[in-house]
Amino acid sequence: MVLAAPTITLHPSGAELPQIGFGTWKHNGPKATEAVYNALKVGYRLLDCAADYANEKECGLGLRKAIDEGIVSRSDVWVVSKLWNTFHRKEHVREAVLKSLRDWGVEYFDLYYVHFPISLAYVSPNERYPPGWFFDTKGTKVVQDPAPLQDTWRALEELVDEGLIKHLGISNMASVIISDLMSYARVKPEVLQVEIHPYNVQSKLVQYARTQRLAVTAYSSFGPLGFRVLNMTKALDTQPLFTHTVIMDIAGEHHWHLHNKVSATPAQVILKWALQRGLAIIPKSDDVPRMEENLRVGLGIGGTDGGSGDGGFILTEEEMERISALDIGLRFNDPSDDFGCYIFC
Amino acid sequence: MVLAAPTITLHPSGAELPQIGFGTWKHNGPKATEAVYNALKVGYRLLDCAADYANEKECGLGLRKAIDEGIVSRSDVWVVSKLWNTFHRKEHVREAVLKSLRDWGVEYFDLYYVHFPISLAYVSPNERYPPGWFFDTKGTKVVQDPAPLQDTWRALEELVDEGLIKHLGISNMASVIISDLMSYARVKPEVLQVEIHPYNVQSKLVQYARTQRLAVTAYSSFGPLGFRVLNMTKALDTQPLFTHTVIMDIAGEHHWHLHNKVSATPAQVILKWALQRGLAIIPKSDDVPRMEENLRVGLGIGGTDGGSGDGGFILTEEEMERISALDIGLRFNDPSDDFGCYIFC
Repeated sequence: MVLAAPTITLHPSGAELPQIGFGTWKHNGPKATEAVYNALKVGYRLLDCAADYANEKECGLGLRKAIDEGIVSRSDVWVVSKLWNTFHRKEHVREAVLKSLRDWGVEYFDLYYVHFPISLAYVSPNERYPPGWFFDTKGTKVVQDPAPLQDTWRALEELVDEGLIKHLGISNMASVIISDLMSYARVKPEVLQVEIHPYNVQSKLVQYARTQRLAVTAYSSFGPLGFRVLNMTKALDTQPLFTHTVIMDIAGEHHWHLHNKVSATPAQVILKWALQRGLAIIPKSDDVPRMEENLRVGLGIGGTDGGSGDGGFILTEEEMERISALDIGLRFNDPSDDFGCYIFC
Repeated sequence: MVLAAPTITLHPSGAELPQIGFGTWKHNGPKATEAVYNALKVGYRLLDCAADYANEKECGLGLRKAIDEGIVSRSDVWVVSKLWNTFHRKEHVREAVLKSLRDWGVEYFDLYYVHFPISLAYVSPNERYPPGWFFDTKGTKVVQDPAPLQDTWRALEELVDEGLIKHLGISNMASVIISDLMSYARVKPEVLQVEIHPYNVQSKLVQYARTQRLAVTAYSSFGPLGFRVLNMTKALDTQPLFTHTVIMDIAGEHHWHLHNKVSATPAQVILKWALQRGLAIIPKSDDVPRMEENLRVGLGIGGTDGGSGDGGFILTEEEMERISALDIGLRFNDPSDDFGCYIFC
């Protein structure tokens, strides 16, 4: 049996966004190809990627292999990419999208995000690609080059008109800039992707997104975990969620329906909390059993049958609240902070 | 002797903004007229007002009286107003500015702010003025009507071209929307006015503003004090700054130079902390001795002679840091919060 994720109906297109996608940040080299291929085999139908992840070619090869073997067809899969900060000027948007499409080996993106509401000085792909958080010649500072977001958006809308992008998204944005964007967008963004986990619940932002009928994708669902490998002090100093007593206790309360011998994993509890809030998630894993474990969390969500196997548990309202109460507004991916004196000083 | 505030040189105009202005929020009726008149007499040369404060006529009368009595001439004084949220659409900006100018009885504003980066549905002044945070017919919700900030700004720039506004400012904005605005503004904003006090230090935002060469005006310098009269729970539940041991201890350490019998007041310590950070302030008071007490804090700042009287003390770096360490990121005037479910739900 191949698992299938529940979906979220996007507005205004009516398209069905897989509520569980496969995250590819920090998957690099041949491992990225293998991971994407395995994820598709397991049942993932959304591949969340970005120019900045420096792995679009490798991810594309994994997709190609799965298509060649008849595991999926192109139209079964949401291929997702993001516009990097150095390509915000309208004359560079098309270049960025075409480059990412070429790297992936696909003819269109199902969903394409503005990665950050931050515009940095252009770096030619011939010089360095992807350019990352760009440093000047002294290697010390990001060079800001503010371009009106409206110009960036107009350029993206043209690519939607041409069919190179099916749906637009925005990432790392808060209510004020979203409201401004909504006021002039002809093609409305349909998905907002932001950092959300029990230490950064973002209830006000999620509530605001609902008023705008924006679907919300949570990234870094496991909180500090994804940032520990980067040796980020803030992440190393924070209690990991997998061993947090609140998460472990709740995991212990949910035994698999059929086997009744192993409890739900802490990872599943954290992901289920996100899904029950109506959020889309994009967990990453190298490991096939973990990929399955994460995808099984979709069982029991959105009318799917939760009784058919592990992962199908449902958190009680009280459990949801206990997890949400872990909120300390702790954001790890904060350009004004960690990446960031580079940008703002 | 009439006290004079130190000034901050604005960019790019080179104009000298009084670093201590007189705040008029919650001054209403004849008391507003009297307060403005007295403030000018004491030596204030900036009157910080807004359409939303519902007192522009009364403040204007105070200014008129002071001019008529030869205390000041129009060109000595910075008259400051702010565009309310219901006038963001370009066709309403001029109407709002002309109405405020008429109410004040002046021919131009020295500084005119966008009050919030929030655009609400238009309310005709014939129907209700000022309209406040607008509720719909059921009286329950603010009606959002997002207008592109760029359109609002273009309309304001035209009024600068016509000489009705000398300098533009922005208020209640954070780095992302400021950066976007800077990218398209032909007439750059020169001042950013935001809530800043020891419980809400905003060091990153102030740092960012410096990169943009924006002067920063701190409002609600006394933290919860200004919000207690509104019965705001968050303010009532917060330790008042005037009786906070850190503030009181530091006040006790600074005796008046001449009299050497009364310590600096807690209010002076809080204001001095802001001035030494290079911020402009706009304290409010009904009481002439308090107005003087607040204005005297400018002594010793920016090369003025601190030895000439009380208020001329300078905080040590260690004292500055002890005050800044009170930061808990506590913002009282947060539309996404208190005013707020109104807006975002």
